[in-house]
Amino acid sequence: MKVEEIARLLEGKLKGDGKREITGIAGLENAGAKDVTFADSARALPRAARSAAGCVLVPEGSSLPGLTTIAVKHPKLALIRAAEALLPKTPHKPGIHPSAVIAPGARLANDVAVGAHAVIEDEVEVGQGSSIGAGVFLGRGVAIGSDSILHPGVSVYAGMRIGNRVVIHSGTVIGSDGFGYVFADGRHQKFPQLGQVIVEDDVEIGSNATIDRGALENTVIGQGTKIDNLVQIGHNVRVGRHCVIAAQTGVAGSSEIGNYVVMGGQVGVGNAVRIEDQAIIGAQAGIPTGKIVRRGLTMWGTPARPLAEFKKTYAELTNLPNLVKKVKALSGRKTATSKRR
Amino acid sequence: MKVEEIARLLEGKLKGDGKREITGIAGLENAGAKDVTFADSARALPRAARSAAGCVLVPEGSSLPGLTTIAVKHPKLALIRAAEALLPKTPHKPGIHPSAVIAPGARLANDVAVGAHAVIEDEVEVGQGSSIGAGVFLGRGVAIGSDSILHPGVSVYAGMRIGNRVVIHSGTVIGSDGFGYVFADGRHQKFPQLGQVIVEDDVEIGSNATIDRGALENTVIGQGTKIDNLVQIGHNVRVGRHCVIAAQTGVAGSSEIGNYVVMGGQVGVGNAVRIEDQAIIGAQAGIPTGKIVRRGLTMWGTPARPLAEFKKTYAELTNLPNLVKKVKALSGRKTATSKRR
Amino acid sequence: MKVEEIARLLEGKLKGDGKREITGIAGLENAGAKDVTFADSARALPRAARSAAGCVLVPEGSSLPGLTTIAVKHPKLALIRAAEALLPKTPHKPGIHPSAVIAPGARLANDVAVGAHAVIEDEVEVGQGSSIGAGVFLGRGVAIGSDSILHPGVSVYAGMRIGNRVVIHSGTVIGSDGFGYVFADGRHQKFPQLGQVIVEDDVEIGSNATIDRGALENTVIGQGTKIDNLVQIGHNVRVGRHCVIAAQTGVAGSSEIGNYVVMGGQVGVGNAVRIEDQAIIGAQAGIPTGKIVRRGLTMWGTPARPLAEFKKTYAELTNLPNLVKKVKALSGRKTATSKRR
Repeated sequence: MKVEEIARLLEGKLKGDGKREITGIAGLENAGAKDVTFADSARALPRAARSAAGCVLVPEGSSLPGLTTIAVKHPKLALIRAAEALLPKTPHKPGIHPSAVIAPGARLANDVAVGAHAVIEDEVEVGQGSSIGAGVFLGRGVAIGSDSILHPGVSVYAGMRIGNRVVIHSGTVIGSDGFGYVFADGRHQKFPQLGQVIVEDDVEIGSNATIDRGALENTVIGQGTKIDNLVQIGHNVRVGRHCVIAAQTGVAGSSEIGNYVVMGGQVGVGNAVRIEDQAIIGAQAGIPTGKIVRRGLTMWGTPARPLAEFKKTYAELTNLPNLVKKVKALSGRKTATSKRR
Repeated sequence: MKVEEIARLLEGKLKGDGKREITGIAGLENAGAKDVTFADSARALPRAARSAAGCVLVPEGSSLPGLTTIAVKHPKLALIRAAEALLPKTPHKPGIHPSAVIAPGARLANDVAVGAHAVIEDEVEVGQGSSIGAGVFLGRGVAIGSDSILHPGVSVYAGMRIGNRVVIHSGTVIGSDGFGYVFADGRHQKFPQLGQVIVEDDVEIGSNATIDRGALENTVIGQGTKIDNLVQIGHNVRVGRHCVIAAQTGVAGSSEIGNYVVMGGQVGVGNAVRIEDQAIIGAQAGIPTGKIVRRGLTMWGTPARPLAEFKKTYAELTNLPNLVKKVKALSGRKTATSKRR
Repeated sequence: MKVEEIARLLEGKLKGDGKREITGIAGLENAGAKDVTFADSARALPRAARSAAGCVLVPEGSSLPGLTTIAVKHPKLALIRAAEALLPKTPHKPGIHPSAVIAPGARLANDVAVGAHAVIEDEVEVGQGSSIGAGVFLGRGVAIGSDSILHPGVSVYAGMRIGNRVVIHSGTVIGSDGFGYVFADGRHQKFPQLGQVIVEDDVEIGSNATIDRGALENTVIGQGTKIDNLVQIGHNVRVGRHCVIAAQTGVAGSSEIGNYVVMGGQVGVGNAVRIEDQAIIGAQAGIPTGKIVRRGLTMWGTPARPLAEFKKTYAELTNLPNLVKKVKALSGRKTATSKRR
């Protein structure tokens, strides 16, 4: 693809050599003459100026002397578009590996791909264009939509439902029992875990994550939500649409997460929490059981508080040694004053 | 089952229509005319009043006008009992899938179930009524008791021991090497990891958890203990009986956890810690290396302190801005006073 | 092996019966007459005095009356040496299990071991003496060096590179997509994840860990580094040589970790952090995005600060109730004084 063609595709402003052939995308440091790369902000421009890239996507209004650039509104987003145009999509290869074990009652669309040693139990349904990786386990009655990809080693318990265009990375477990017990007669007695996990369309889930089935209701991951590696979602949790949940975060049972919520890594959310739309929870924050986080708030710390409040207390915490000194001085003077009387 | 039969089974007090047929259990919101559900406490009664359930288990002394109720001492526990009576148990289906690879020297009781693509090495023993899921790996010499369930994709390293009525969810790894190195000659040299993991009877372990083998001693998970998803138990750790350890908690090497200990999610326990019986560790708390947590204490924070202490300090921390103001005012007045003199 | 032979091997000072036969190693508590054990420091000597071990490795200058001891500079390291001499190495058993699925284009050295139900795709290379466990998945073009061990159930995505003498424990996923999205048009759009994971020589990685592929660059785990269970390493992260990263720690995208860095358990490292050589990060600490941790510093807390500073603030935090009392007293007296005037 010529640079000028990419500029046209991205509706950007080209400076430099539009006739250059571009064949791939790369980072600022490792890009070569046939790669397009990007400088996300003005701050990255000096670093970009040293790039050997054939073409650099830059923010509107900027250019790089001596380099071929395309100025666009959102360079990082533009690179996604360029990659879609330049890079061949991983081809979907329909076909069932002979070592896969597929129950006779499973209903697979005619172009499904099933990897070696996958196990697909009875009454499973898999839609058009979906790909079931090597060693994946789909329990009885699992339903998978169209164009979904389950990477090698994913386990889906019986009866769980996964939508269209869902991607699940290796080792992730969907539908294990929720962690619910009632302590009686000196032991923990298991509460029934009968609900489903429902993963809606366009969700992506990282590797070695765990999403528990509901107890008496369902666990739901809303449309377009992205979940990172090693995340734990407890039973009955309802995650809304287009959320982002970073690695190693855990959400305890029966909590409700709104739409467009962003959670950093290693966040802990207690039971029966409600996090409203567009809230942002900082990394490692802890939201105590039963708490409500209001729409659009940014929270940090354990127990989590609104960011501004957290920062204020934190600044004063850091300043505590000075406060202690001040009080000591006051006490000293006070005592001196008292004595004088 | 008729409502009056359920009432008799639960030794509860029936109000309403005892002749109704009940076939299942469900949550307050999704229960229908043939379901029994429960209201755990007085607080849940208003919500329960709107339920379409055929029968609601309510706390002793309460009822719901217009609904059929059974009043019992502990409605949640009663629901467990009702579920046991109403719901068919997942049937144990003995039989070995032809794709499973089982070493000739393995000794499996005659009614064991082994799923597709499971791998069972030499000298493994599996007791009566146990079920080994698809793709499970049992290393040489592993011993599994009776009526245990290993869900698909569990890995058990050579020589580890698992008791009776144990449930292990998908992706969990039992017996990987402990994390022990000695730094010498500019590199980390591996300390021998030779011990076992011993999982006692009636333990349940969630999905994608990791329990390391002991170094020179054993790692032990005591009888009746319940461990949630993504929990890490280090080498030589001894967890007592009937503990509850919530998701993403990690216990470092050689720590000792007593009986009936409760740990929230994302708790971190350092090396060589001792947590005595019936202690409660709040979510995200951190117990520093070598610390002793006394019997029955509730701890919170990092480094963890007794809850009352933590709360007091936390309240004062939150009040720090006021304290700063007060000191400023005192300093100001003080200065003013001084000047006046 | 006779005790005197072990003493010679360890260049230690023998006291007691040098003719005893030793066949194994064990812990202080469970060692018997044919075992060698160790007391790492003077503090462990009283406990060692009660050991039934045939021989105890003790620190230089110490001995145990009535027991056979070898005094050495570093008893724990000496035990590693003794174990190497005493214990048979797990034999490498070359051979490919007939149930393994190996693409015709894969190039395996002649003495490689491949377990049951492993899946090895096209263009994979595996070096001399390496062992691929049961159920392991190696995607197209993966390269594994010599004498490496992949325990059962490891997944390696297409194109990832693993060095020599690397050990990876069960359930670990190497090369899943990094967590990178651009929010535009009301949804999270996936940024290309095209880089590799490069695991250098002598690395050990625990069970159920996740190491993401780079986005446009590579993710690198440096030579000799040891990574514990359930650790998450994000895209483009570069971990240096001979680091130690304890369980459940997470490192977000594009961070750089120097050489000889030590990280406790459950540490959280934000994006684009730089941790310089020999820094130590305490358990559960949180390093905010963009932060630089200077060479050799020890950090603790969230947000992490140098240990001395953290301890000081923490001590004053603990002392806050007293400070509050003092200020109250001062205010009281102040008011009293004011009134008197």
